[in-house]
Amino acid sequence: MKRPESGLVYATRRFTFSAAHRYWRPGWSPEENRKVFGSLTQVHGHNYTLEVTIRGLVDERTGMLMDLGELKRVVGEAVTQRFDHSHLNEDPLFSGDAIPTTENLARGIWDLLAPKLGADRLWRVRLWEDPTFYVDYYGP
Amino acid sequence: MKRPESGLVYATRRFTFSAAHRYWRPGWSPEENRKVFGSLTQVHGHNYTLEVTIRGLVDERTGMLMDLGELKRVVGEAVTQRFDHSHLNEDPLFSGDAIPTTENLARGIWDLLAPKLGADRLWRVRLWEDPTFYVDYYGP
Amino acid sequence: MKRPESGLVYATRRFTFSAAHRYWRPGWSPEENRKVFGSLTQVHGHNYTLEVTIRGLVDERTGMLMDLGELKRVVGEAVTQRFDHSHLNEDPLFSGDAIPTTENLARGIWDLLAPKLGADRLWRVRLWEDPTFYVDYYGP
Amino acid sequence: MKRPESGLVYATRRFTFSAAHRYWRPGWSPEENRKVFGSLTQVHGHNYTLEVTIRGLVDERTGMLMDLGELKRVVGEAVTQRFDHSHLNEDPLFSGDAIPTTENLARGIWDLLAPKLGADRLWRVRLWEDPTFYVDYYGP
Amino acid sequence: MKRPESGLVYATRRFTFSAAHRYWRPGWSPEENRKVFGSLTQVHGHNYTLEVTIRGLVDERTGMLMDLGELKRVVGEAVTQRFDHSHLNEDPLFSGDAIPTTENLARGIWDLLAPKLGADRLWRVRLWEDPTFYVDYYGP
Amino acid sequence: MKRPESGLVYATRRFTFSAAHRYWRPGWSPEENRKVFGSLTQVHGHNYTLEVTIRGLVDERTGMLMDLGELKRVVGEAVTQRFDHSHLNEDPLFSGDAIPTTENLARGIWDLLAPKLGADRLWRVRLWEDPTFYVDYYGP
Repeated sequence: MKRPESGLVYATRRFTFSAAHRYWRPGWSPEENRKVFGSLTQVHGHNYTLEVTIRGLVDERTGMLMDLGELKRVVGEAVTQRFDHSHLNEDPLFSGDAIPTTENLARGIWDLLAPKLGADRLWRVRLWEDPTFYVDYYGP
Repeated sequence: MKRPESGLVYATRRFTFSAAHRYWRPGWSPEENRKVFGSLTQVHGHNYTLEVTIRGLVDERTGMLMDLGELKRVVGEAVTQRFDHSHLNEDPLFSGDAIPTTENLARGIWDLLAPKLGADRLWRVRLWEDPTFYVDYYGP
Repeated sequence: MKRPESGLVYATRRFTFSAAHRYWRPGWSPEENRKVFGSLTQVHGHNYTLEVTIRGLVDERTGMLMDLGELKRVVGEAVTQRFDHSHLNEDPLFSGDAIPTTENLARGIWDLLAPKLGADRLWRVRLWEDPTFYVDYYGP
Repeated sequence: MKRPESGLVYATRRFTFSAAHRYWRPGWSPEENRKVFGSLTQVHGHNYTLEVTIRGLVDERTGMLMDLGELKRVVGEAVTQRFDHSHLNEDPLFSGDAIPTTENLARGIWDLLAPKLGADRLWRVRLWEDPTFYVDYYGP
Repeated sequence: MKRPESGLVYATRRFTFSAAHRYWRPGWSPEENRKVFGSLTQVHGHNYTLEVTIRGLVDERTGMLMDLGELKRVVGEAVTQRFDHSHLNEDPLFSGDAIPTTENLARGIWDLLAPKLGADRLWRVRLWEDPTFYVDYYGP
Repeated sequence: MKRPESGLVYATRRFTFSAAHRYWRPGWSPEENRKVFGSLTQVHGHNYTLEVTIRGLVDERTGMLMDLGELKRVVGEAVTQRFDHSHLNEDPLFSGDAIPTTENLARGIWDLLAPKLGADRLWRVRLWEDPTFYVDYYGP
């Protein structure tokens, strides 16, 4: 179980990337896809906003939880350079029958970041598909 | 006790509605109302922003927590069609001495949505009265 | 004719106020009001955002177009204190058959500010009813 | 020449749609496309925000420039239903060598709206590709 | 341990202040400061946005968690009047080797508010340095 | 005279930088400075948002007004790298008695960009000091 803990600090940095996607399950017939996913079966796209939250004790020498430049480098290499200006359905993350929904993308981003940032230090991945919809994931 | 749980996904959709209200307790004298509520006793209004958060396991077939169209239908029928272009003090929710504060409205919206979405699936109701003030409610 | 002029500086300050209103023309029957204005006939409300733009030459001693504290005092006294926490239909501006639409309110605010700020210095009144709709007025 | 005119009111309504696109000129070689357009040659997407501004005299009976419901209907039918959940490169507007840039899309939206709203009443089309870039077009 | 509790309401008010700061540890050499903090060693500044969250039971007489005017007075006197238009490095909070990072400022604001609002009623201090970075602190 | 012209496209890109400043005229006594500028005499800071608007005819081969990467390079080299993480009063632009007001900074940015972008192509510099105040400048 993970929860806000006393004494810890939670720091969140926002990132953006633009990507295309469609909801389409290759194992289903076109009719079934259209019935379940409607107009989402058509290729379209979003400006995604990603919020990465890390938590931990403040380094009392620097007053910082983590060097922000380092956080930007890690998220840039693992996530935004991969997904920015991309068609999500063509990413290995969404091969097979995995649909590039906001839910699945948020979980995929967690799996990409946890080994780099530490599953304990990584607190939450929040992914906005547009200004009206976001998904939070706190890990498996 | 309710808290973020590992493996679960939390999905939030924003809705808006415009309504009028005043802070006025019929059982009090006008003097007492003005002393406690000040200029809030005068009829005024807001563009409310409502964030409804549901949580649960992802449906691995669709990659979604819940069909968003269905969520929009439920919240539309139970909440936004009821409160949009309305005077909150005239809503049955605020009969008697219940004041249409943001706190009370957030709790009322929870009570309207929980039976429809499931008290376990509904995680949080966040209600913004304006861009500087919001109330969170996680259920009774 | 008024237009952006070379050498001039245009400075815009945002203000907010919350008010209730309804679209209702007393000289019309209820049926006619409902036919023309629909659900806007019901009392509801908004968080208005007002942008006041003044223009002119920079005072080279202070580097400012106008003292911002003075601008806030003028707009506060003439506009926001008048309309904040108010029911617009009860304001003298909307007596008779004048409907408190965003268009009419923007023109009314111009008329309140022009004598105080100078019709030449006042460049534009922009009034947002909500984040999806705004009206600009450049004077009569 | 078109410019803000005294006495007129300018009303702006915001709309949103999500679409995919890529910058690719069929008449060019892949090398030339990549040299000029870089990573924009890859399919990606955006949440577009469209601001449609109309101008004119206020109808003194209704206090409105134009019925907003009618404006929403016109823009919905001509623009947002066409481009929302679409791949812009597959739209007839971008057949041949026309690239679905923000500039071209803004001009295309003008051409779709002007016959419906009137080229004189339609004042400006503003199109945001994301929160850091927008294009304004005032007609041909 | 602190966590969202059933039946409680969480109310958040946003405040803003503008301040200058630099990251500089007097006990370190200039070289060491520049190596660790880079361009942050130079004096610069931010428009900070502070979100103060209080939680508790709703007062059923007023429908409010706490009088908002009282909350504004407390935060104004303890925090925004102190830090607005200030150079953070010159504040007693950052004497010695404490760096005015967002993390340290969020913890300092908690310590200033907890005695005034009650450590139990004060739930969270969220401090935005700019629209891309914020820190949450739930107390010691 | 400069104004929106038919057939032209106006493209705006937003940039951000963080800087410190104070309002202080060396040629004045401290008393006079405090009387005119009040709390602005104290060192504080802002997250500035700069909007650079260029205008012209669309290049029908590329569908673009100007390569955005080139625009970012020019504004980055001439403006944001200069002012980000800086104390504006120490910039040569504000030597002597020039106060780093938003008005003066907007004009200074125009003068830095016009030779690089062309005074005819550069249409407007808009500078936000914070989300409540911005200045527009259309050139000398």
